[in-house]
Amino acid sequence: MTKYIGILTAGGDSPGLNAAIRGIGKAAEAFGMQVIGFRDGFRGLMENRTMRLDGAVLSGVLTVGGTVLGTSRDKPNRMPIGGKRMDMTDVMLDNYQKHHLDVLVCLGGGGTQKNAYQLVQKGLNVITLPKTIDNDVVMTDVTFGFDTALGIATEAIDRLHSTAHSHHRIIVVEIMGHNTGWLALGAGIAGGADVILIPEIPYDVEKVAEAIRWRQREGKSFSIVAVAEGAMSKQAAAVLDKAAKKLSEAEDKATKKKLKAKLRELEGQHVGNTLRLSNQLEHLTGLESRVTILGHVQRGGTPSAVDRLLATRLGTACVDFISQGYYGVMVAARGEGAEPVPLEEVVGKRKIVPPDHPWIQSAHRVGTSLGD
Amino acid sequence: MTKYIGILTAGGDSPGLNAAIRGIGKAAEAFGMQVIGFRDGFRGLMENRTMRLDGAVLSGVLTVGGTVLGTSRDKPNRMPIGGKRMDMTDVMLDNYQKHHLDVLVCLGGGGTQKNAYQLVQKGLNVITLPKTIDNDVVMTDVTFGFDTALGIATEAIDRLHSTAHSHHRIIVVEIMGHNTGWLALGAGIAGGADVILIPEIPYDVEKVAEAIRWRQREGKSFSIVAVAEGAMSKQAAAVLDKAAKKLSEAEDKATKKKLKAKLRELEGQHVGNTLRLSNQLEHLTGLESRVTILGHVQRGGTPSAVDRLLATRLGTACVDFISQGYYGVMVAARGEGAEPVPLEEVVGKRKIVPPDHPWIQSAHRVGTSLGD
Amino acid sequence: MTKYIGILTAGGDSPGLNAAIRGIGKAAEAFGMQVIGFRDGFRGLMENRTMRLDGAVLSGVLTVGGTVLGTSRDKPNRMPIGGKRMDMTDVMLDNYQKHHLDVLVCLGGGGTQKNAYQLVQKGLNVITLPKTIDNDVVMTDVTFGFDTALGIATEAIDRLHSTAHSHHRIIVVEIMGHNTGWLALGAGIAGGADVILIPEIPYDVEKVAEAIRWRQREGKSFSIVAVAEGAMSKQAAAVLDKAAKKLSEAEDKATKKKLKAKLRELEGQHVGNTLRLSNQLEHLTGLESRVTILGHVQRGGTPSAVDRLLATRLGTACVDFISQGYYGVMVAARGEGAEPVPLEEVVGKRKIVPPDHPWIQSAHRVGTSLGD
Amino acid sequence: MTKYIGILTAGGDSPGLNAAIRGIGKAAEAFGMQVIGFRDGFRGLMENRTMRLDGAVLSGVLTVGGTVLGTSRDKPNRMPIGGKRMDMTDVMLDNYQKHHLDVLVCLGGGGTQKNAYQLVQKGLNVITLPKTIDNDVVMTDVTFGFDTALGIATEAIDRLHSTAHSHHRIIVVEIMGHNTGWLALGAGIAGGADVILIPEIPYDVEKVAEAIRWRQREGKSFSIVAVAEGAMSKQAAAVLDKAAKKLSEAEDKATKKKLKAKLRELEGQHVGNTLRLSNQLEHLTGLESRVTILGHVQRGGTPSAVDRLLATRLGTACVDFISQGYYGVMVAARGEGAEPVPLEEVVGKRKIVPPDHPWIQSAHRVGTSLGD
Repeated sequence: MTKYIGILTAGGDSPGLNAAIRGIGKAAEAFGMQVIGFRDGFRGLMENRTMRLDGAVLSGVLTVGGTVLGTSRDKPNRMPIGGKRMDMTDVMLDNYQKHHLDVLVCLGGGGTQKNAYQLVQKGLNVITLPKTIDNDVVMTDVTFGFDTALGIATEAIDRLHSTAHSHHRIIVVEIMGHNTGWLALGAGIAGGADVILIPEIPYDVEKVAEAIRWRQREGKSFSIVAVAEGAMSKQAAAVLDKAAKKLSEAEDKATKKKLKAKLRELEGQHVGNTLRLSNQLEHLTGLESRVTILGHVQRGGTPSAVDRLLATRLGTACVDFISQGYYGVMVAARGEGAEPVPLEEVVGKRKIVPPDHPWIQSAHRVGTSLGD
Repeated sequence: MTKYIGILTAGGDSPGLNAAIRGIGKAAEAFGMQVIGFRDGFRGLMENRTMRLDGAVLSGVLTVGGTVLGTSRDKPNRMPIGGKRMDMTDVMLDNYQKHHLDVLVCLGGGGTQKNAYQLVQKGLNVITLPKTIDNDVVMTDVTFGFDTALGIATEAIDRLHSTAHSHHRIIVVEIMGHNTGWLALGAGIAGGADVILIPEIPYDVEKVAEAIRWRQREGKSFSIVAVAEGAMSKQAAAVLDKAAKKLSEAEDKATKKKLKAKLRELEGQHVGNTLRLSNQLEHLTGLESRVTILGHVQRGGTPSAVDRLLATRLGTACVDFISQGYYGVMVAARGEGAEPVPLEEVVGKRKIVPPDHPWIQSAHRVGTSLGD
Repeated sequence: MTKYIGILTAGGDSPGLNAAIRGIGKAAEAFGMQVIGFRDGFRGLMENRTMRLDGAVLSGVLTVGGTVLGTSRDKPNRMPIGGKRMDMTDVMLDNYQKHHLDVLVCLGGGGTQKNAYQLVQKGLNVITLPKTIDNDVVMTDVTFGFDTALGIATEAIDRLHSTAHSHHRIIVVEIMGHNTGWLALGAGIAGGADVILIPEIPYDVEKVAEAIRWRQREGKSFSIVAVAEGAMSKQAAAVLDKAAKKLSEAEDKATKKKLKAKLRELEGQHVGNTLRLSNQLEHLTGLESRVTILGHVQRGGTPSAVDRLLATRLGTACVDFISQGYYGVMVAARGEGAEPVPLEEVVGKRKIVPPDHPWIQSAHRVGTSLGD
Repeated sequence: MTKYIGILTAGGDSPGLNAAIRGIGKAAEAFGMQVIGFRDGFRGLMENRTMRLDGAVLSGVLTVGGTVLGTSRDKPNRMPIGGKRMDMTDVMLDNYQKHHLDVLVCLGGGGTQKNAYQLVQKGLNVITLPKTIDNDVVMTDVTFGFDTALGIATEAIDRLHSTAHSHHRIIVVEIMGHNTGWLALGAGIAGGADVILIPEIPYDVEKVAEAIRWRQREGKSFSIVAVAEGAMSKQAAAVLDKAAKKLSEAEDKATKKKLKAKLRELEGQHVGNTLRLSNQLEHLTGLESRVTILGHVQRGGTPSAVDRLLATRLGTACVDFISQGYYGVMVAARGEGAEPVPLEEVVGKRKIVPPDHPWIQSAHRVGTSLGD
């Protein structure tokens, strides 16, 4: 019996999404299944805006960045409608049924896993793929998008080396990663950064300055500091921790709301961290310092060979699992294969860099300061 | 009779500097001339800090970004010494003579041409090469560094396209160029930007917004705005013009100083322009807008083939001119050859994008808004 | 009155073709002209196979290599039909008239200029653009496609350097260019090749070997030899010259035919030159030698920023010229602008590297052997 | 007590070798160990030609392709000396002792593991790292060099797509891999090749042609065939198998020698396979076909971020293992960490693509023909 598959891509775009869509589409064709795409994430599922994924679409997208389906950050149970947030999962179920779908494939990061799980609880057959340049999804070796972003960020560090070296400067380069440091750590090591600061390891700015001064004493008049967006000083981390603790201990709703707003505000103050850090380092070392913020270039463009291979592998495995009736699972990368992992084990968790991770050890061994 | 050549690189680093140094060094060897490098621009000439440019150094640098000699932005007649600005051209002349130099080769942009000319007036034999990623040196077809920067900025726009397209966003990408728009205009056209804003053409933000809304009406829900660092709105440009006019009309020294400080302050307010523009466009179009600031990645890394070829050509031509006794000239790129141009004709001028330049016309023809 | 424009791309594909098609299409739209594409070069014009070039097609092709129209090497007056070569210019004129075309734009290299001129003589309004990675079209500063190919070939030489250096080997890298050496010479200089061999300068293999041995004596145990496909030894060149002279002196048709066949055969023997050269160098120097043949990778993939800018500039200028009624011309790149050049001045000529070209001089100055 | 470490790199060069040397050197410094390099593989150990690996050397090599130590394919027990092959392991032991080494680190592929093991049996403390672009070393998840080569080969396929598409051609692209198909398979999938031929799966040329004809019937007039150097037809494989079987059954030495020579000759005939295959496909499909042989570009140039990260990780882990006294082991990549694997378990084996590997399945699912 022909199976009907719906696909959507949600959350931030990530290189390899199109390769995954192609993998699913071509494998479905091989199985004689039918595929339909929903535009702009869960919003398109709600609004029943669809796109045919025929051979002509699938043939050209392997090397194309972004997602042909479009994406959005909307959440099924909190869709912004007329200035309010509304639970639209029922409407989504309706549209799922209207198209006689057997399964909905959701491609996304940690947030998308969570959103997809809401639809599972609503009774939809759902299967997900893990994509994000942040690499912070649990239960999978890796997510697609990460390798491409790693390559771009590393190449940027390579470029910054020449100007840092020629001008005897500090260059502080901000790399994506609000909550996890995989990208900054990986690119920092691969690019030979002298200091790497990640959210998992709050830093002591004096230790960072000392690492740079030590290099000066060794005759190296420049330094590259790779810093994740969400990296923060020990003091800032302590303030945040305290606020978070207070929030978790709050009992009445009003207090909770107030404390939550406070926490958001505190988090917000860390935007601009990178600029502040650069100024502090100028002051502490006497060297000129310049900031580069890579921003969205890290998530765009042609996916790397590895991401295309991974996305194709997970996309085709996804259809294999569909043919075997696996639902409510994420297609995880495991070694060179793929495994279905129950969404319950994925939802609400985030893979952070553990303190004893081999990359951390490597960084220490080659003399990179982690600011701790 | 053996000639002795000194070389220095000054101003912002630029891809191709090492290729030019190699070209000069190898050509000098072919002529039996001796070459010595001064470190960190005019500062090294003042402090007599030198570097041997032997075969081993020259062999490996063709593909390396930055400058092996180091660079600085110091000006010979205003060297920062002990908190003051002092004229150190005499000391430089001394060092020039100590090394029995026949000629000093200065590699740099517009500022360096000016600084080099001071040494000409001091009696040194000087010959310069035009390098800058800004392409704003007059009397030469092009400067080396520009092609590499153009490639990097264009690739960044390519990457941003995928994320703009996937998220239905405006992406505002800031490209280097405080005073001239060559890089933003070139990369904007090559990258297919929908709006390009350059310092030479003050913009009307409402017209920019209208260009984006027009795209929306045509079904294109995203736009790329390429903006040069120094681009400004018509209002801002008018304010600056007025301040500049006042300054030019000022007669006593105190007023001049005050007005100059005022002008600087006004110019300073334009830092952050790009963020402000992004916010305005969000407001005027109702679309989300994100900013990317490419920064120093644009000037680093392996030079492009064209820049290596150009730098090699100008470097070797420079030695030909030295062998023929041309001094007080800049080695300009003309067609596929090189010509010596008297420094008087170069100093104090800046090549800006003329309003009828073929690139401007091309941009208009393909439907790109220039905000005017 | 609305003008109707037909476009075709002919000859070998070249990066920038799609950018040029886009430039023509968008500019035509700005002028209110109508554009139609013919598929697969002159063959599509003969077979009346067309393609709509609407906004959707034009929007996505700026960064795409190859040509969306397809191409072929067929010649209007010698179309292969049923095993024969037939003059099909009349049929092409018919189709031109059927579509009520005002002008046919032909994008191609030297051969295409010639083919287009046949149609001019048949009474069609024709305007051409110069594209080829070989850069061998006369009367234009440069052709689009060349810059991209230069970048690819140079990057390949960069890569080969590491392996040559690590293994103390000669690496002979064959670069496209049957009749002209622009690409091999440019990439050779930009990549720091130790020997560059081009068709314009027949080489003495003993001198090539001596250049490599000299490097060995200087302690450099590896060498990169960049060789154009059509480069040949002095002996081979002499034999070919003699054969060509005989042919030019032949009087009766039968003799001519025989001598032409002989010349073709001799030319054919030079295929495999690169392998033979590598073997000779192994023998003469005692070093290991390896061959890399870059082949079609040189003409594919995303065009460089410069080629996109150039193709856009020539494409939009082309429509300007059409609007002014220029026909029978090639849109030539001149400085930063474009000029219409009568096809008579272009047809049947080939731009070769002159012996005193600045690149040749640069190569000599940095110590590169040209084998002469 | 200070430990003394010797390092050498052997076999074909591979991107990441310098990153590994840097990782070892910097980690050794952190442990207070002393490091010395031997030039040109085991030959340098025999000839006692060394190189200091001080901070200056280590600082600049992370991004550099090839190996600063040089390499050779010489085998300790069969060194070519005066026209003969001699066992020089005693001399190597001598030099090892002269330098008071505690351990010798050998960086190489499968052959190097074997050669290193000879020195283990001679009594040297040896530890190895697995590098090769072929990815064919057993007991390690991956080898460094593979990721870079994968990226280069994939980019080449991307480029070839434009020309294949524009000219309606078959393009046969030969990818490195004499005995294993990891690189061709990975790049083939990532590049969207239509046919992938690897040594592990002998092909039926008629099935390859049929896959191409099927595409033609579907309206796709071009095809990309990615073929590993060592791929062969079923007939050729059968002939080789038979010869290999005969050899294994031979009893006297003279027969063995004769059969071995015969086998080598047969293997040699497969050089040129790719050209032959292209001709066969032209004949069977009626389409034009062109060959590109990527060759040594696949192993050169700046290592990818992943290879730098991997090489740094294995290099630093190597020093950790040395500090713990692990000898006679290969430092294998396992998940995100590293593990010491006894050389006995590695030597003489080769990791080939198993028939049920997830990549094989993915390729089938997206409709790629493997020629079987």
